[in-house]
Amino acid sequence: MTLTLYHWWGSTCSRKARLCLHEKGLEWQSRHVDLHDFENWAPWYVEIHPKGVVPSLDHDGRVIVESNVVLEYLDDVFPEPPLRPADAADRARMRVWLDKSEHTVHKYMHLISHNRVHAHRWTEYAAKYSEEQLLAKVHGQPDKARRRDEIQHAEHGISDEMVGFAVERLVDELDVMEHDLNNGKWLAGDDYSLADIAIVPFIDRLVANDLGEHIDPSCRPGVADWFARMQARPAFKAAWAFTDPGAG
Amino acid sequence: MTLTLYHWWGSTCSRKARLCLHEKGLEWQSRHVDLHDFENWAPWYVEIHPKGVVPSLDHDGRVIVESNVVLEYLDDVFPEPPLRPADAADRARMRVWLDKSEHTVHKYMHLISHNRVHAHRWTEYAAKYSEEQLLAKVHGQPDKARRRDEIQHAEHGISDEMVGFAVERLVDELDVMEHDLNNGKWLAGDDYSLADIAIVPFIDRLVANDLGEHIDPSCRPGVADWFARMQARPAFKAAWAFTDPGAG
Repeated sequence: MTLTLYHWWGSTCSRKARLCLHEKGLEWQSRHVDLHDFENWAPWYVEIHPKGVVPSLDHDGRVIVESNVVLEYLDDVFPEPPLRPADAADRARMRVWLDKSEHTVHKYMHLISHNRVHAHRWTEYAAKYSEEQLLAKVHGQPDKARRRDEIQHAEHGISDEMVGFAVERLVDELDVMEHDLNNGKWLAGDDYSLADIAIVPFIDRLVANDLGEHIDPSCRPGVADWFARMQARPAFKAAWAFTDPGAG
Repeated sequence: MTLTLYHWWGSTCSRKARLCLHEKGLEWQSRHVDLHDFENWAPWYVEIHPKGVVPSLDHDGRVIVESNVVLEYLDDVFPEPPLRPADAADRARMRVWLDKSEHTVHKYMHLISHNRVHAHRWTEYAAKYSEEQLLAKVHGQPDKARRRDEIQHAEHGISDEMVGFAVERLVDELDVMEHDLNNGKWLAGDDYSLADIAIVPFIDRLVANDLGEHIDPSCRPGVADWFARMQARPAFKAAWAFTDPGAG
């Protein structure tokens, strides 16, 4: 049995997948995809994942894409330890968090990171590629919806108003987390689950974006305690220990 | 045991839920929520679904929200007949379709319907409410991301360029469907599944928006045949037979 994860060391969604693999105690092969060199848009990778994003999982030649789908797949195929609550209503709450992980939390975190992180990358690229080469890269991005967004962001940036809106919407979700964590030990109730795995990389990223004040114990004690418990897990440490293979 | 569905007769996501209930042969109570009278944003409904959208399912007092989550919940709690493929990789493909149903297909279909359908509603509202009352309604919408979008759409409309982009992205998904349906009987392989249930209301809506040419047998025979098989199912007929309770 071979499990190969196509991933990038610093990607939030790759961390979701690595955290799940480590929680399951699975042996896996790493195929690092260098997002900062556009390797995810290279033809060989688009064959694997038509949208050209990480992660993807190859399990004995069958490819599973979309990080939330990878998480449920791993729990379907390797049921021990279970990472979905036994209670069906709790499992439903878990799935609402999985959906929010991608379509609310990830979406807004990306908008917040843009000016701080992604925009700077273009300065680095400018030293490496001609403007023509860069345009060809961007227009070659396989996911046309992301391509459209990225071209707009590159041309117009993201307004302070939009970043403020994104932070407010994330804070709304922190309030929901605080509520849920005051009513159960974990996000989907009393069982540690894929919900916790899917959300924690974005809380880590929130802190990295100097927004840690929002999870300070003085304002959201439930979230603060949960994040400390998450960081203390051996699987969390292992998932985050995968750092940039290209770094000196 | 009581199952109560909060739904609106013509909503695509409500049709997903009704189709699944009928496939399972379940008895359910209807609580019709009149979207055209803003009932979904009324305090009593926002208590049930904080985002103020339909459907929601009440199962013996436990509320399940988000149509895709409702589908998996129904298959978790009422496993016969099974509506998720036995094979884990097919189940993963099913979950990719579930995600696309909401975040790709629904998103673009909504943009396409706006000028044709939703914009006209505001003319009807203008006869019923003062401008002040209407503004209060819109600003009272509980989901702040949708509120922002709807205010922008009401003020600026949706450009022809954006509608064209949305149609192109839907056509991309029709190509993926055609590919999948040439490789298996149903969207997630050889088993009829929640994938088919989650996608079909949007294909029906595509036809209602005069875009049926894209699923003509001459251009996409696999999709055309699949849609005919879906429409022939007794559960489809039952789900679609629920029409406007307020209509003369």
